Amino acid sequence: MNYPARQEQLRRALGDHRLDGFVVTHLPNIRYLCGFAGSAGVLLLLPQLNNIFFADRRYEEQAGAEVTGAVVVIARKSPLAAAAEWLKTEGRRVKVLGIEPEHLTVAERNLLANTAGTGIRLREAPPLVERARMVKDPQEIEHMRAAARLGASLFEVALKTIRPGIKEVEVAAEIEYAARQAGAEGMSFPTIVASGERSALPHGRASSARIPSRGFVVCDFGVILAGYCSDMTRTVHVGAPGARARQIYSAVRAAQQAAVRAVRPGVILGKVHATARKLLSQKKLVQYFQHSTGHGVGLEIHEAPRIAAAQKEPLGAGMVVTIEPGVYIPGFGGVRIEDMVAVTEQGCQIFTPTTKELIEI
Amino acid sequence: MNYPARQEQLRRALGDHRLDGFVVTHLPNIRYLCGFAGSAGVLLLLPQLNNIFFADRRYEEQAGAEVTGAVVVIARKSPLAAAAEWLKTEGRRVKVLGIEPEHLTVAERNLLANTAGTGIRLREAPPLVERARMVKDPQEIEHMRAAARLGASLFEVALKTIRPGIKEVEVAAEIEYAARQAGAEGMSFPTIVASGERSALPHGRASSARIPSRGFVVCDFGVILAGYCSDMTRTVHVGAPGARARQIYSAVRAAQQAAVRAVRPGVILGKVHATARKLLSQKKLVQYFQHSTGHGVGLEIHEAPRIAAAQKEPLGAGMVVTIEPGVYIPGFGGVRIEDMVAVTEQGCQIFTPTTKELIEI
Repeated sequence: MNYPARQEQLRRALGDHRLDGFVVTHLPNIRYLCGFAGSAGVLLLLPQLNNIFFADRRYEEQAGAEVTGAVVVIARKSPLAAAAEWLKTEGRRVKVLGIEPEHLTVAERNLLANTAGTGIRLREAPPLVERARMVKDPQEIEHMRAAARLGASLFEVALKTIRPGIKEVEVAAEIEYAARQAGAEGMSFPTIVASGERSALPHGRASSARIPSRGFVVCDFGVILAGYCSDMTRTVHVGAPGARARQIYSAVRAAQQAAVRAVRPGVILGKVHATARKLLSQKKLVQYFQHSTGHGVGLEIHEAPRIAAAQKEPLGAGMVVTIEPGVYIPGFGGVRIEDMVAVTEQGCQIFTPTTKELIEI
Repeated sequence: MNYPARQEQLRRALGDHRLDGFVVTHLPNIRYLCGFAGSAGVLLLLPQLNNIFFADRRYEEQAGAEVTGAVVVIARKSPLAAAAEWLKTEGRRVKVLGIEPEHLTVAERNLLANTAGTGIRLREAPPLVERARMVKDPQEIEHMRAAARLGASLFEVALKTIRPGIKEVEVAAEIEYAARQAGAEGMSFPTIVASGERSALPHGRASSARIPSRGFVVCDFGVILAGYCSDMTRTVHVGAPGARARQIYSAVRAAQQAAVRAVRPGVILGKVHATARKLLSQKKLVQYFQHSTGHGVGLEIHEAPRIAAAQKEPLGAGMVVTIEPGVYIPGFGGVRIEDMVAVTEQGCQIFTPTTKELIEI
C-alpha cells in the first residue's frame, strides 16, 4: 500500500485546516495511514516533524514489522497517555492538535487535554481520513474484488446446507468454516441467516431457530481478506414460493438492479436511494423498506459514504459501496438482495458474481 | 435476569451522586440493565420517572421483546438524538445528567449538549454500571459456568486438529465450527492459535503459518453463550519438548497455580499479580512476562477488574476473572495458561475443567 502518498495527502489537509498535528485513534484509520493492523495504538501525524506511532509492549514486534512512515515508540503506559506525554515534553511546536471527535471518547479527550497541558489547543477535526478512505486506490480495489469473490463462493456452501429442519446457526457454521478454510481472516460481521418469519428482521443474526419447510431465508455475510471486508446478501426460498413471495422477490430484485444502474460518478447518493424506493413504491412495498440502500465498505464493514435519504454528496470513481434494498413484512417474511459495487470512471462494476434469480430449495 | 434489582441498585447510586438522570450508551451496560441485546440503542435512567429505552426501527420488534423496566421509544432518528430531543422537550426535571465518559465520544457528547440545550448540565459519572457488573449474581454465574464448559470442550477439538504442517487458521476453523455446532452464539474474541516462534506473540491471532514439526502452540479462545463470554488458554507442544521448553512450561504452570491459590475475597488485585510474578522471578523468567495476570469477564471479554500491578482494589465474592500468566521468549516461543475463576465466599472455584499437564502432540 502507498502509505507515504496517503500521509502526504493528509499532511496537506492538515495544512488546509491549520492543524500542527493530528492524533489518530481510530484503528482502521491508523491501518490506512501507516499499515499497523494490531488492536491498540495511537498515530501522531506531525506535518512539520516525523510522524510517531505509539504502541504498548504487546505490539512491539508487530509495530516494528508493519508501521511505515512513522517512528515507533513502545510505551510502558497506554499509547494515548504516551502520546500526550510526548506532546507535553517534546511537542512544543504543536499548538493546535486535531482530534477525531467521532472516535475519541470524552475520557480520552480529558486524558489528552490534562496531560498535554495548556500549551496545546485541541480542535475537533472533520473526518479527514474517512473522506480519503472513501476512494479506493487500485491495490485496494484488487483486495476488495478478491474478498468479494471469496465471500460469494460461500453462497454455494449456504445453498448446499439450507434445508428444512436445520438450525440457522448450523448454516452460519458451515459458511464460516468454509470461509476459514478458504483463507479468510475472519467474518466481517456476525453472519445473518434469517428464515421464515425471522427473515422479516433486517438484522436477524443466525439463531437456533430451525429453517421451516416453506419460506424465505435471508443470508447476509462477508469475509475479511487482507484487511478488507466483503458484504453480500442473497435470499432463497425453501419450498415452492407462492404468488406473494414471488411478487416481493421480483420487486426487490428490480429495485436493487435499478439502484445499481444508477451508480456512476457524479450521481448524488440520495438519488441512488430514491431510485430503489421509487421501484418499491410502484409495487406498493416502499413502506416495508425502512433502512438505507447501502454503505461504503473497505477496511470497515460500514464506512462512508451512506446511500440514504438526504445524502447530498456525489458518488466518485473508486468508491466501493453496497446496494441492498430489502422488503420486510412482519409475520410473513423478508427479502434483501445485496451486491458490492465499485464506482468506475464510466459507471460501475458489480463485484458480487452471484445470480439474483430466485433460488428454490 | 433480575433487571428491576439492577435498576434499583443504580437508582440509589445516582442519588448518591446527585444525578437526575443517566444516559447509558455502552451496549453491554444497556444489556445488563434492561436486557436489550441488539447493537444500537440508548437507555435513559430517570430515578424520578419511568426509564426510557430509545431504539431505531430496525430494532422495534427486538426491543419490544427484550426490554424490561423501561418504556420503549422507536425513533426515526438516531437513538441518542432521540434521547436528547426528549430531554429538551419533556425532560425538564432532569437538571444534571450523568454520562459515561469512557464510552461516549466527543461527537456524541456534543450532540447531546447541543440538542438538550442549556437547561441540562452533563456530568461525567464514575463507571457505576461496570462496578455493579463486576459482581455476578447466581444466574450469571450459571451462564458463565456453562460458557466455560462449552469453551473447554473445544480444546479437545484443538488437540485432534493440531499436527505439523496444518495451518493455524485451520485449527481455528475447527474450533470455531465446533463452537457453532455446540450452540455458541459466536466466539468471544478472534481465536488465537500461535505456533513455533509465533507462540512468543501474546496476541498471535491464528495466521496462515503452518504448525512446525516441533514447538509450542498457544491456543486462546472463548465462546459467547447466552450473552456471556468464556476465555481459556492452553499451550501444547508439538514433538518432544526439550529441557528449556519443559522448564518454561512448568514455571508458567506454577505461577498460574499460585495466582489461582491467591484468589479469595479481600485479596488486593495487585497481590494476585505479584504472586504470579514472584514465581516467575524465582525462575528468572519474569522479564518475559509483560502483560497483566488477568481480567474480569462477563458480558464483555475484558471487563473490570484488572489483575495487574498497582491495582489496589480487593477481589470480592461473585467476581469472575481470568488468571493467565505467560512467558514469551522472542525467537524461541511462548507459553500461556489461562483459567476462568470465580471468587467464592471461601476462596475460589476454577471454571475451566481442563488439565494443565504439558500435552505433547
